Amino acid sequence: MRPSHRSPNALRPVRITRGFTRHAEGSVLIEFGDTQVLCTASVEDSVPGFLRGQGRGWLTAEYGMLPRSTHTRSAREAARGKQSGRTQEIQRLIGRSLRAVVDLNALGERQVIIDCDVLQADGGTRTASITGACVAVMDALNGLVARGVLPANPMRELVAAVSVGIHDGQPVLDLDYAEDSACDTDMNVVMTATGHFVEVQGTAEGAAFTRAELDALLDLATAGIEELNGLQRAALERDIA
Amino acid sequence: MRPSHRSPNALRPVRITRGFTRHAEGSVLIEFGDTQVLCTASVEDSVPGFLRGQGRGWLTAEYGMLPRSTHTRSAREAARGKQSGRTQEIQRLIGRSLRAVVDLNALGERQVIIDCDVLQADGGTRTASITGACVAVMDALNGLVARGVLPANPMRELVAAVSVGIHDGQPVLDLDYAEDSACDTDMNVVMTATGHFVEVQGTAEGAAFTRAELDALLDLATAGIEELNGLQRAALERDIA
Amino acid sequence: MRPSHRSPNALRPVRITRGFTRHAEGSVLIEFGDTQVLCTASVEDSVPGFLRGQGRGWLTAEYGMLPRSTHTRSAREAARGKQSGRTQEIQRLIGRSLRAVVDLNALGERQVIIDCDVLQADGGTRTASITGACVAVMDALNGLVARGVLPANPMRELVAAVSVGIHDGQPVLDLDYAEDSACDTDMNVVMTATGHFVEVQGTAEGAAFTRAELDALLDLATAGIEELNGLQRAALERDIA
Amino acid sequence: MRPSHRSPNALRPVRITRGFTRHAEGSVLIEFGDTQVLCTASVEDSVPGFLRGQGRGWLTAEYGMLPRSTHTRSAREAARGKQSGRTQEIQRLIGRSLRAVVDLNALGERQVIIDCDVLQADGGTRTASITGACVAVMDALNGLVARGVLPANPMRELVAAVSVGIHDGQPVLDLDYAEDSACDTDMNVVMTATGHFVEVQGTAEGAAFTRAELDALLDLATAGIEELNGLQRAALERDIA
Amino acid sequence: MRPSHRSPNALRPVRITRGFTRHAEGSVLIEFGDTQVLCTASVEDSVPGFLRGQGRGWLTAEYGMLPRSTHTRSAREAARGKQSGRTQEIQRLIGRSLRAVVDLNALGERQVIIDCDVLQADGGTRTASITGACVAVMDALNGLVARGVLPANPMRELVAAVSVGIHDGQPVLDLDYAEDSACDTDMNVVMTATGHFVEVQGTAEGAAFTRAELDALLDLATAGIEELNGLQRAALERDIA
Amino acid sequence: MRPSHRSPNALRPVRITRGFTRHAEGSVLIEFGDTQVLCTASVEDSVPGFLRGQGRGWLTAEYGMLPRSTHTRSAREAARGKQSGRTQEIQRLIGRSLRAVVDLNALGERQVIIDCDVLQADGGTRTASITGACVAVMDALNGLVARGVLPANPMRELVAAVSVGIHDGQPVLDLDYAEDSACDTDMNVVMTATGHFVEVQGTAEGAAFTRAELDALLDLATAGIEELNGLQRAALERDIA
Repeated sequence: MRPSHRSPNALRPVRITRGFTRHAEGSVLIEFGDTQVLCTASVEDSVPGFLRGQGRGWLTAEYGMLPRSTHTRSAREAARGKQSGRTQEIQRLIGRSLRAVVDLNALGERQVIIDCDVLQADGGTRTASITGACVAVMDALNGLVARGVLPANPMRELVAAVSVGIHDGQPVLDLDYAEDSACDTDMNVVMTATGHFVEVQGTAEGAAFTRAELDALLDLATAGIEELNGLQRAALERDIA
Repeated sequence: MRPSHRSPNALRPVRITRGFTRHAEGSVLIEFGDTQVLCTASVEDSVPGFLRGQGRGWLTAEYGMLPRSTHTRSAREAARGKQSGRTQEIQRLIGRSLRAVVDLNALGERQVIIDCDVLQADGGTRTASITGACVAVMDALNGLVARGVLPANPMRELVAAVSVGIHDGQPVLDLDYAEDSACDTDMNVVMTATGHFVEVQGTAEGAAFTRAELDALLDLATAGIEELNGLQRAALERDIA
Repeated sequence: MRPSHRSPNALRPVRITRGFTRHAEGSVLIEFGDTQVLCTASVEDSVPGFLRGQGRGWLTAEYGMLPRSTHTRSAREAARGKQSGRTQEIQRLIGRSLRAVVDLNALGERQVIIDCDVLQADGGTRTASITGACVAVMDALNGLVARGVLPANPMRELVAAVSVGIHDGQPVLDLDYAEDSACDTDMNVVMTATGHFVEVQGTAEGAAFTRAELDALLDLATAGIEELNGLQRAALERDIA
Repeated sequence: MRPSHRSPNALRPVRITRGFTRHAEGSVLIEFGDTQVLCTASVEDSVPGFLRGQGRGWLTAEYGMLPRSTHTRSAREAARGKQSGRTQEIQRLIGRSLRAVVDLNALGERQVIIDCDVLQADGGTRTASITGACVAVMDALNGLVARGVLPANPMRELVAAVSVGIHDGQPVLDLDYAEDSACDTDMNVVMTATGHFVEVQGTAEGAAFTRAELDALLDLATAGIEELNGLQRAALERDIA
Repeated sequence: MRPSHRSPNALRPVRITRGFTRHAEGSVLIEFGDTQVLCTASVEDSVPGFLRGQGRGWLTAEYGMLPRSTHTRSAREAARGKQSGRTQEIQRLIGRSLRAVVDLNALGERQVIIDCDVLQADGGTRTASITGACVAVMDALNGLVARGVLPANPMRELVAAVSVGIHDGQPVLDLDYAEDSACDTDMNVVMTATGHFVEVQGTAEGAAFTRAELDALLDLATAGIEELNGLQRAALERDIA
Repeated sequence: MRPSHRSPNALRPVRITRGFTRHAEGSVLIEFGDTQVLCTASVEDSVPGFLRGQGRGWLTAEYGMLPRSTHTRSAREAARGKQSGRTQEIQRLIGRSLRAVVDLNALGERQVIIDCDVLQADGGTRTASITGACVAVMDALNGLVARGVLPANPMRELVAAVSVGIHDGQPVLDLDYAEDSACDTDMNVVMTATGHFVEVQGTAEGAAFTRAELDALLDLATAGIEELNGLQRAALERDIA
């Protein structure tokens, strides 16, 4: 039995709240169980220097955890004066994942900046971030279409992410913090709605893993992401509160 | 008529939600209208080096704004590698305000760290932070009493804060962002439940102000803080959701 | 009796030496008793980026303490790699105080940079800085008029600052370091020559203060600043050494 | 035909030179074609604070590129004052990969620090780093055994890494810079000598990839790493120059 | 004729004012013409970590320029967040120069920290700093003897410094800013009162220099330093104001 | 007998390998005995801001030591977030030395950036860096001539550097690490092929030194640099491997 008492292939309850804050062009609170991440998408009318004048857009992401989103308080990165390696890894992953599904040429010379800020952490903050950011970016891009700035939404398809791991010899889906700490292998999978992989990142925290274990984890992740895509679609069909 | 259509001495709707997140010993979401600040209080069993071995406690605060809590996105301080002067001013003010009502000797050699993170900004983030942090600290200290760590709660009385300003010649209470931008004078007042001042910070943004104007502003703030104290007490009497 | 043996409403001996160093457009050594601050005003023919092309000027300030201006040596901020929150608070205060009396439109697209460097500290360094910086800026702006760059001096009136506090129940003026350490309440007041407040910053270091105490402190500060304005005027009438 | 004219499953010429510099306990120059990385392993008799007193050892890694190891000069990270996100990602990967094959309990309370410095870059610097670092760490640990500090070498098995990618629809092994730039999908695989995965990091730079493509890439990588393990073993059997 | 109209071997007027500020154990304002440097020596009862427990003392130096000590304002290093290479070079030179004449074993486990802050710059700030710091350190060490902390002053002999250069083919002593800018070769010489060199730093700013020129510069510097030693001795014989 | 058993005026074996890496316009590995420095020269088609539009070129240098180039591992400067004072001193020295022999007007509006990275350290890294950088810059500038970018090589003459010191009363040439640690006086001399000094930096690490000792050291250095110039010329005449 896994620590969360869920069946091996069960996601935690997922809640996607659009319009959580007012100012951002897209603003989504996503909850994977007790993990809560506020994902905003901001649209700016300029691009970074290395892209200027090329008529193409850009999309980038930043990530942070509130100091007491975790069990014990972590030092505030702004006060320490630098972002940790883990933070940088995660925000680079979020950016790459969303760029994989947005047509940057169709976006034109503007930039979408995603901010994923973890209000409460219980494992899976990066996968929740990607899944929530996708909805926030969709809202922001729909806004550009609604205002007549763009003729069509440049997001080609949805993207979502989930973690999988091997707990006590058993492949399980969507690890919470307790499970994550107890797993030998931990894998984050990012996949599009048409079933293509954007990122596969498997890490042996303890014992290294076999090809068969890898295959089982990918199967589990694939099914989980399909379910998440459905939840994203359902959220996008609801009215914003 | 002030921009918000409120009467000069009216606060915005204030909402205080205790237990907003799980991990912190005290966790409060405070809303002053559209301003939303998550205030957590974390208790640690050690004190900063300069106090070690003296048997006294310490209380300090940190403050941050999520990048898209504002109308246009602000740079993330963690990414810029330093906190702005404004951030440092505000977090020092929050710390001083709470230290003024907590008996640090009675706290024993432990530290309370307040984190005030602005989820959405519409003026008055520092006064909302102080008002919300007071409730979060009270909850955290009550927890120490409940667990038998302390014989009594070392918070001597409640503290709250509000902004006042002169808009179009008229003293008004609790400025939202639009009003703040239109005021010549802006004052933040921090006061205890027994009506003593902890901080008075008045600044002439435009024309300097007279003693009579200062007096009117202090009257207005005093009444506003009494009202906030009532709301704090009511929140503390409710069960945590 | 207050520690300094001064009467409650007595300033320390104030000395204002114009032309203390050669290169700056304005250079003033101001002494409030043993507190010595070198205030320079530098005029530059450009403004920060956010103001460019608007035809308006800007005025900003920086503040520092020499490492051994204090009783025990403080770490050099340049060596530590950042300015403390206290330093930032003070330099922001100096800048706001002077901007309140200078017509930035009349200054044209140029910038005045004030540097206040504390050579010796004995309490009141921020109020001495503001009082001295006002004279340095006046000299710098008079220089622009003398060179025909400006038709008239854009400083509308003088500004000065003083600290007040409650020592042993007694409101006293212009605290030295020993008095400042012994006061429950400490207030810095910045006021123009026409008697308008620019900043009022009162802080309860120990017990919170009443409205009556606040009133007494403001009375004392008002008289002290009038006296400082007289000393500023006298200094400006003397020839530069 | 791939740009390098190699067959799809061909590694570049690999050269492993042990004892490349004198001071380090292990020092290896590894070449994957034109990619040259100097990998040193330093042994220190203390561990980071979070491990002190537990009798366990630690292994960590740092990575850097000489400014002109690349086609055009990159800014020196020491001069810029911070390490890029890419650098941090890579050095964290190297550390995890080697920790996966070293018994940290058997190492005792000492630390191995790996430094991977790229002298010349032509793609695959992270995989060359891991492969070379493994040999350097083995030498350093053998030194501890030779000096009687440890009874047996705590490295359980060899570890190596290689990149694979899909070039023009064809899965290819060990990408050089030109190929890496032209690939839609890029995967880095870290595997032990007994064929277990330590890390699998696949990224869609352009089009997302299918499960079948992923499988083909893993097959290719597995064969490549077996070949690299053989080259590591051969290098370890030679005398140090 | 050199720009300053001085004869080639003439120092600028040198003024050494002891007791310039109150708090430091040694405090000297030294003036080489228009160059003014405040040199303080602070004594602390601990040494840096690398010396702890060895019974030896340490002496180190820090250097800074006030932003408007120069013709045009320079950025404040504390605000920029780092000290320039030039600043670090100079403070290392000052430290080495003074350590050369102080018996660190006799000093016991305490540290002398020199702060040299340039109030006004007109060339030769590093040589004025060394010459003034020597007097400040002497005063601080005499204080330790007077208080019975040390049996004898651990400074073995005086040390002073001067710059020399080749102006228009002519070797000249003690360059002011205008001369320094016009010299091809610039040399700073640090020498003890018994005529031994502590540092010789010659730099060809324009054309490289011959051995004969080097010899002429050293002769000139030697005579200048003897004169400075006399001025140091005279200052030390006067009462502190 | 000096520790290295060399005669007092003997250089260590010097090896100059051109074309050590591929990407840089000039790339030289220089060895002074066990000291190994990789010197690259990169040519860029722009100059720093302060020179823009003047038609002149610039040459600058950066220096670094690989963490385990030394007997015990030193912290990586990129990880510490700043370059040490020693590093900055050395890179400024390398830059000045090379600028002294290159006609920056003839170079046109382009920049040469030298990177000197120490692979293995055994004393004399700064003198080896200058000597090797000279060859790398020559190669880079010859490349500009070969490509028709410049009509003639703007390097006026070769420059080289060597250290000298007084070991046990005896002046000795080209100190290795053991000798350097045992010398009272240490001098670095930079000289052109026509026998003119570019830099002379003598430092008394222990006892101060006399004029006679200084003269003996300069004689020794002069002969050593002549020998180094011969080795540079020989290296430049060989084909690049």
